[in-house]
Amino acid sequence: MDAFDRYLTDIKQQIKLETEWVSTKESLDRISAKAVYAKASSPNYNASAMDGIAIKSALSALATESNPVLIEKSHYQYVDTGDVISKEWDAVVMIEDVIWKDNDQAMITKSVGYFENVRPMGEDISQTQMIIPSFHLIRAVDLGPLMASKNEEVEVFKKLTTAILPTGNEIVDVATEKLEDGMIIDSNSSMIKGLTASLNLEAHTLPVCSDDYQQLKEVINQATKENDVLLINAGSSAGSEDYTVKIVEELGHVSVHGIAIKPGKPAILGLVNGAIVIGLPGYPVSTYIVFEQVFKPLINKLFHQRNEQEVIQATLTKTIYSSLKHLEFVRVKVGYLNEQFVCTPLARGAGISMSLAEADGMVIVPKQSEGYQKNNPVMVHLFKPSSSLKHKITSIGSHDLILDVLNDVLNQQDSPYSLSSSHVGSYSGLLALKNKETLIAPIHLLGSDGSYNSQTVQALFKKEKMALIKGVKRKQVLAFAKGNPRNIRSIEDISRENLNYVNRQQGSGTAVLFDYLLTKNGMDKSDVVGYDFVMPCHFNVGAAIKNNTADCGLLIKSIANVMALDYIEVMAEDYDFVLYEKDLERPEIKSLINTLTSDFFKEKLEEFDCYDTKNSGQILILGEVE
Amino acid sequence: MDAFDRYLTDIKQQIKLETEWVSTKESLDRISAKAVYAKASSPNYNASAMDGIAIKSALSALATESNPVLIEKSHYQYVDTGDVISKEWDAVVMIEDVIWKDNDQAMITKSVGYFENVRPMGEDISQTQMIIPSFHLIRAVDLGPLMASKNEEVEVFKKLTTAILPTGNEIVDVATEKLEDGMIIDSNSSMIKGLTASLNLEAHTLPVCSDDYQQLKEVINQATKENDVLLINAGSSAGSEDYTVKIVEELGHVSVHGIAIKPGKPAILGLVNGAIVIGLPGYPVSTYIVFEQVFKPLINKLFHQRNEQEVIQATLTKTIYSSLKHLEFVRVKVGYLNEQFVCTPLARGAGISMSLAEADGMVIVPKQSEGYQKNNPVMVHLFKPSSSLKHKITSIGSHDLILDVLNDVLNQQDSPYSLSSSHVGSYSGLLALKNKETLIAPIHLLGSDGSYNSQTVQALFKKEKMALIKGVKRKQVLAFAKGNPRNIRSIEDISRENLNYVNRQQGSGTAVLFDYLLTKNGMDKSDVVGYDFVMPCHFNVGAAIKNNTADCGLLIKSIANVMALDYIEVMAEDYDFVLYEKDLERPEIKSLINTLTSDFFKEKLEEFDCYDTKNSGQILILGEVE
Repeated sequence: MDAFDRYLTDIKQQIKLETEWVSTKESLDRISAKAVYAKASSPNYNASAMDGIAIKSALSALATESNPVLIEKSHYQYVDTGDVISKEWDAVVMIEDVIWKDNDQAMITKSVGYFENVRPMGEDISQTQMIIPSFHLIRAVDLGPLMASKNEEVEVFKKLTTAILPTGNEIVDVATEKLEDGMIIDSNSSMIKGLTASLNLEAHTLPVCSDDYQQLKEVINQATKENDVLLINAGSSAGSEDYTVKIVEELGHVSVHGIAIKPGKPAILGLVNGAIVIGLPGYPVSTYIVFEQVFKPLINKLFHQRNEQEVIQATLTKTIYSSLKHLEFVRVKVGYLNEQFVCTPLARGAGISMSLAEADGMVIVPKQSEGYQKNNPVMVHLFKPSSSLKHKITSIGSHDLILDVLNDVLNQQDSPYSLSSSHVGSYSGLLALKNKETLIAPIHLLGSDGSYNSQTVQALFKKEKMALIKGVKRKQVLAFAKGNPRNIRSIEDISRENLNYVNRQQGSGTAVLFDYLLTKNGMDKSDVVGYDFVMPCHFNVGAAIKNNTADCGLLIKSIANVMALDYIEVMAEDYDFVLYEKDLERPEIKSLINTLTSDFFKEKLEEFDCYDTKNSGQILILGEVE
Repeated sequence: MDAFDRYLTDIKQQIKLETEWVSTKESLDRISAKAVYAKASSPNYNASAMDGIAIKSALSALATESNPVLIEKSHYQYVDTGDVISKEWDAVVMIEDVIWKDNDQAMITKSVGYFENVRPMGEDISQTQMIIPSFHLIRAVDLGPLMASKNEEVEVFKKLTTAILPTGNEIVDVATEKLEDGMIIDSNSSMIKGLTASLNLEAHTLPVCSDDYQQLKEVINQATKENDVLLINAGSSAGSEDYTVKIVEELGHVSVHGIAIKPGKPAILGLVNGAIVIGLPGYPVSTYIVFEQVFKPLINKLFHQRNEQEVIQATLTKTIYSSLKHLEFVRVKVGYLNEQFVCTPLARGAGISMSLAEADGMVIVPKQSEGYQKNNPVMVHLFKPSSSLKHKITSIGSHDLILDVLNDVLNQQDSPYSLSSSHVGSYSGLLALKNKETLIAPIHLLGSDGSYNSQTVQALFKKEKMALIKGVKRKQVLAFAKGNPRNIRSIEDISRENLNYVNRQQGSGTAVLFDYLLTKNGMDKSDVVGYDFVMPCHFNVGAAIKNNTADCGLLIKSIANVMALDYIEVMAEDYDFVLYEKDLERPEIKSLINTLTSDFFKEKLEEFDCYDTKNSGQILILGEVE
């Protein structure tokens, strides 16, 4: 990245790294400014490596078990492990090879060589030896040798003082203010501060600054005088970014404005009053990408730290389309199936902070590339060790609250496995299962025979032996705002012209159910205002109703309850897990079934008061039973 | 491990984990006590995703570039990104699709669908959705969603207060005392405290307690009343461990004494006053192993954290012999050659703390196994990400100070590569190169023709095309204590009967040189007292002389200088790097050569005032040039 190198050069001309001496005991995670050499040896004297007697080894030359050799009291010294071996002696006979006689005479039953059972001075560390090089990130295992070699203090680089400045009229620090429409809680500052913890920075957050040119200018001027680094987090409006660029230009120097990366394009890299100034875009994912891909490598370069990130190869389960104009960073979930990694792209909107929390890594699509085709191998830059990904139970399919509860209970019950769910709807889940992209697919699909799940699975997996692990019986409801202001009494009411419905995407079990209900009531999608207004999961449907964006929609009772909506019940349905029959033997599936059948899990679900767990964890082999 | 499970059961019966509410902003690296749900949606209202005008989407239905549609001032509202979309509107037309007319009328050139360019309330997070499960280690990327969902505080597990108690008459806290023979600096406490940093513990170190039964008992009693965890670090004498066991038995309960692991066997696991008490063995490597293999998994189990450690397969370069009685942990260095990992065991003494600092991982040899054969694949449990190991330049061979300096300069010059050296002597280095266990072998081997290195390499690698990268010309000296108290004037003096020589291991260049000097002077190894007393590197030879364990020995001038020894010069020799000619093209070798030829490196070596760097970095293809 040209812009990056240009900026790094600018910084290196202006910033001089300072050093300080700190107590070695407090030097964990600091970076050494100079190589550190041993000031003393360890051990600092010839030490006994055993409990026994120190002798001149020559005296023992002929000793054997059948011919022990007598050592007079004046020709040995009793030593414990770690004791000094004085110049009189040159070896230690282990206590188990000594037979005691009268007058403290010792019979030894084994010969010892020169310096046998003696730790020579400097065995571990020799005085003047290099203990750590310069620019070394000090770890716990370095502290031992540093202390043992009499380095009580160590010269390290000072941490760069770093101010985080949230800006924007709409941004509020929730700790001090009430949240109203149009206000956005300052969540980025906390994430940014968290991200600084792994770097040689000492960060603090300034009060939110509104989009007032003069005020912003004063704050930036002051903060750059008092700190080595200023991270300005733009509000979401374009205005705040424009202000920042102008102010940095007035007070100092803008090295780079706008980088061809996505998300993160509007980043600003500048220098004011000798301080590094970075303008981070307002959307959380953009902020994260600019921090991790631009700012972090910059700080690591300054302190000569290598960027270490594990990269694995994984099979892509969904095509990624990307623009030729940008280097793009796509968050992905990673699963482990049949001894291979698979990865599924997450929501790409820059505003989806949950996609960062859910992501296991990133796929980087270079400029001049249109993206990657599904089923092809791609490189994934991991956020967590690949070993941890091998303990995930990959689930792709329909969404229900019980998935979160299941994962929580797996954690609480010390299962070595965790549940990693992607919510794409029932039918897409089955297709993922067919493509070997997931281990299990949670579904609720009404068959033409009125039964749930088994019919659709058998139709799709004709020749395969499949299994259903029974999940829960749950209720689908037609939900509306508290108090039912639009007086909705039945499915037929949805056809009223002034009523807005909110639907789910095609292929989701809820959309299938809605179509079934329409047909059953002699209605058609053309009768429904909002039939094409779809949301990706129950939560979003609930939020749309709560917010009066829509008047009603189908969703599950548990979510209608937790979101305090009113409703009429329309259907009881089976929410089950589909998988290949052969996978029932896998330990992670056994762990999942254990959890589903556990009292602890069932008690947890009772809190929601709308799940029937009588059959939870039961196994149905499709084509045999039923 | 039975003992482990027994102890964990004991602990779970006695210890109740407490929780506390902390500000979310301060919750990084804490462990959630309960699942956390969203208290607000994000965004908390329908928000514009663009700068543009909010309209009723139906009005735009027919708009195209050739047929723009006019929107009256009263039928739209100007919005910035992030602004509230009020109930009047249901879509946003991007500002670039608007042509402005008189009286603020807008011509739109593109139709928009229902909710297009609008971020619906809850797009990122829906109120009541689970943000993090219980027992979740909170990361920077979790802080954003937690804050955005109006969780200003989060309930986490309290950190266990942990006291570290160093014991032993010979142990001194170097900060307060002078180091005398027989004293050992308390270096373990610093390492232990460093290791606690990655766990849910709040640790502090108590003053050193001497091996006084009554005093130790009082300290243990007090510390277990005031803390959740007490880590007692035994002195090196057997006595201190015996005391600890007895005291823990008297005051509480010893669950386990002695575990069949190596190193670390004497560990003590107990409970006193409701506190976890662990007796860690005195040797640094034993302490480390018991901490990492017993204590850390225990704490992780308590807080339902999974132990994540990357495990790779590597080819073993040296046979590991292990006892049938123990589970053994062998520290290894890992190199990356020809797209494969190789690993070399490090010094196995429990007292060698540097072996922890130098190790890249561990090979675990199970009980009932005699070990692993060289050239076989073994599993290595890594201490650092495998990605970082791919940037190491593996070097096995002779030792010289310049290896440390080279690595330091590589760091300072921002090379992506670092140098990882094992010191086994010149000849063993060449054998490692022949076995493809190392990329380069630093050697100094005098040939029968009086030349250095090339002759031996050609004899050993007959058919291979090899290269020499010239290192430095350096001086070998016969070193003795300052002031030359034994009046050593020549090699012949070594044959004096009352003089102790200290040699290097066979196959090292220095031992080869010594044999050559003996022959040249008409002497024989039987003339030398101490010919078989060998040390593994120059530093240890220097330490033996400094400590009067030996009177004299051959070593390199630079180390004689830094160790302040006197000497007579005996030979100038070439210290060079051997490698396969084809590897000259590798980027890490180019980086190494760049460093060797750099002024910066040469200036660094000038400080030692005994290296000739005129030819450093020059390449000699063997068999062609010379």
